[in-house]
Amino acid sequence: MFRSVRGPAVVWGGIVAVGLAVAVIFSTASRPVAAQDKPQDRAGSAPQPGKAADTKDITLDQAHAALAAAQKKADELHIKQDIAIVDAGGNLKAFARMDGAWLGSIDIAQKKARTARYFDMPSGEIGKLSQPGKPLYMIEISNGGLITFPGGVPIKTQDDVIIGAIGVSGSTVENDQACAEAGASAVK
Amino acid sequence: MFRSVRGPAVVWGGIVAVGLAVAVIFSTASRPVAAQDKPQDRAGSAPQPGKAADTKDITLDQAHAALAAAQKKADELHIKQDIAIVDAGGNLKAFARMDGAWLGSIDIAQKKARTARYFDMPSGEIGKLSQPGKPLYMIEISNGGLITFPGGVPIKTQDDVIIGAIGVSGSTVENDQACAEAGASAVK
Amino acid sequence: MFRSVRGPAVVWGGIVAVGLAVAVIFSTASRPVAAQDKPQDRAGSAPQPGKAADTKDITLDQAHAALAAAQKKADELHIKQDIAIVDAGGNLKAFARMDGAWLGSIDIAQKKARTARYFDMPSGEIGKLSQPGKPLYMIEISNGGLITFPGGVPIKTQDDVIIGAIGVSGSTVENDQACAEAGASAVK
Amino acid sequence: MFRSVRGPAVVWGGIVAVGLAVAVIFSTASRPVAAQDKPQDRAGSAPQPGKAADTKDITLDQAHAALAAAQKKADELHIKQDIAIVDAGGNLKAFARMDGAWLGSIDIAQKKARTARYFDMPSGEIGKLSQPGKPLYMIEISNGGLITFPGGVPIKTQDDVIIGAIGVSGSTVENDQACAEAGASAVK
Repeated sequence: MFRSVRGPAVVWGGIVAVGLAVAVIFSTASRPVAAQDKPQDRAGSAPQPGKAADTKDITLDQAHAALAAAQKKADELHIKQDIAIVDAGGNLKAFARMDGAWLGSIDIAQKKARTARYFDMPSGEIGKLSQPGKPLYMIEISNGGLITFPGGVPIKTQDDVIIGAIGVSGSTVENDQACAEAGASAVK
Repeated sequence: MFRSVRGPAVVWGGIVAVGLAVAVIFSTASRPVAAQDKPQDRAGSAPQPGKAADTKDITLDQAHAALAAAQKKADELHIKQDIAIVDAGGNLKAFARMDGAWLGSIDIAQKKARTARYFDMPSGEIGKLSQPGKPLYMIEISNGGLITFPGGVPIKTQDDVIIGAIGVSGSTVENDQACAEAGASAVK
Repeated sequence: MFRSVRGPAVVWGGIVAVGLAVAVIFSTASRPVAAQDKPQDRAGSAPQPGKAADTKDITLDQAHAALAAAQKKADELHIKQDIAIVDAGGNLKAFARMDGAWLGSIDIAQKKARTARYFDMPSGEIGKLSQPGKPLYMIEISNGGLITFPGGVPIKTQDDVIIGAIGVSGSTVENDQACAEAGASAVK
Repeated sequence: MFRSVRGPAVVWGGIVAVGLAVAVIFSTASRPVAAQDKPQDRAGSAPQPGKAADTKDITLDQAHAALAAAQKKADELHIKQDIAIVDAGGNLKAFARMDGAWLGSIDIAQKKARTARYFDMPSGEIGKLSQPGKPLYMIEISNGGLITFPGGVPIKTQDDVIIGAIGVSGSTVENDQACAEAGASAVK
């Protein structure tokens, strides 16, 4: 649906298509878990607290499985990667830097993971919308710094609940994305 | 009035149109808070030393009304939003994150509200001027981070005094803007 | 168990007592929720991801109930407060600044709430351990800034699962703490 | 072991003892990375221009061994820990947060590890010198934030070359230090 915004063949479908694309992305993105997610009349009396929402979160075992799968993919591609896992709250859960991987990717891997969890979509999807002239131009300045090119992917349960995200950095964005997807797929 | 500063083949709507837009935006934008802030007064009479300016500021009741109206609009649109209200000084007054709304929008909603108050115009108006080649290029880097796409709107009294701003984030920029306008309209 | 570390009646029970106290705090603090919280043999084969942890999180309705209760307490005490609620992940959920409350407390209320959630205990407990010569001296420099005096309190479900925290700032630490406890108590 | 530095019963060993302690710490602390880093070489012979220094650095396998040993110790102590490993350059190499461990310890574990490598001594040794009135007062403000209480330990090869550091946070400083030492000892 979205085309690459980098390289020689950049083609945007025009304002209407972009507007549609934005609507699709933003409406199909999986939403976090909240059980009692209903509006409620607050007029008149003191607010009623109700019950807490039932949610899910990634475990360290799951994080290690994602790290191992991403690293295995990197080995297959003969590349060195920095790999970060954040939990449902966007907080760092696990991290590994393969021997020889870039130092600059320590921060980028973490920012990709957070970006993916902060907006519940692959980091690269945000990047398509943050180019000059696009709806989310300069969103990267927010949240202490976002990374909006590929390599960040939400981690979901089998029933599609987002429990965290993985961010991979150290190679081309295509390779980073492939490793991130391999990592996310290892968690069910 | 302003000319493009970058690239040989940059084609925008034309220097004249952009110049007009800039001129219109900057001349029609409501100017800061003070009730007695009329150009002719400033120009015509000497300042009265020792007398402070009479100002107006948003109350928590008004902020809650704006939050509730923005949330109601979000419910109608079946979306989940982060909503922030800042006062006349640009300082956080109230905030609410609807259950399931993006974590990354916590910061963006606040930055949109501040951007709208810092320049007394909708955040998206700034974004038109901050594109590459435009007069305010990279203004987002200032003030600890601005957000210059739609979703931030000044809040005014009936006699057009700006008393704060609302910032909404969590959906498309069109939806964010619609919710922000609904919120701002709830305050008279 | 712990006495105030400020004011004329500061009394520490001595090194042994403090050591004990530290142990008690750190061992009795309620721990977050993690269902599959077991060590596991990782040698030999690829790590097994297992299942996600079942957790709970605060809802906006609950956050509003906490805000309202804290504000009601502030009204009774004839004080003006800034009140912040964070979720289980330490992310801002709701905020309100009462009319006339300190601007400087916007940040402090949020930092108190985060501190309480980051260590799953009242913020003031950390402050007892971070004094010069104490075990956690200068911990405040971490996490982008902690506030370790009273006014931050975890919010728990009836079965003692921590689902967020409340931070209150704007008056004496005793009043701040009283309002925070009132807010936390409103959520069951 | 540590005495209060405030109040009526402040007892320090005196300027001479403190001075001695400082001298001892700074002279006995293991010095940086380079394998051939012997004082007599530096003092005795002229530097050889054009020849880079031979150094050693921790591998990801070693980092994982340290993580596993620290986690094993934490399991034995029935505590939940955040564990960070940095390399010889002070850059993050690996990280794991045990299920249920404090969110606030994500940052502290990393800062402890960096502090230990930045000064090539256990983090707690710095803390003895950074108390009010001591030679390194407020050193915590440097380097983007240091943590100077126990829990950070250099990681060395068998021939005493420092190749990184481990930082552990999540329990008492005594437990944190025990886990950090267990982790560092797993690397030879």
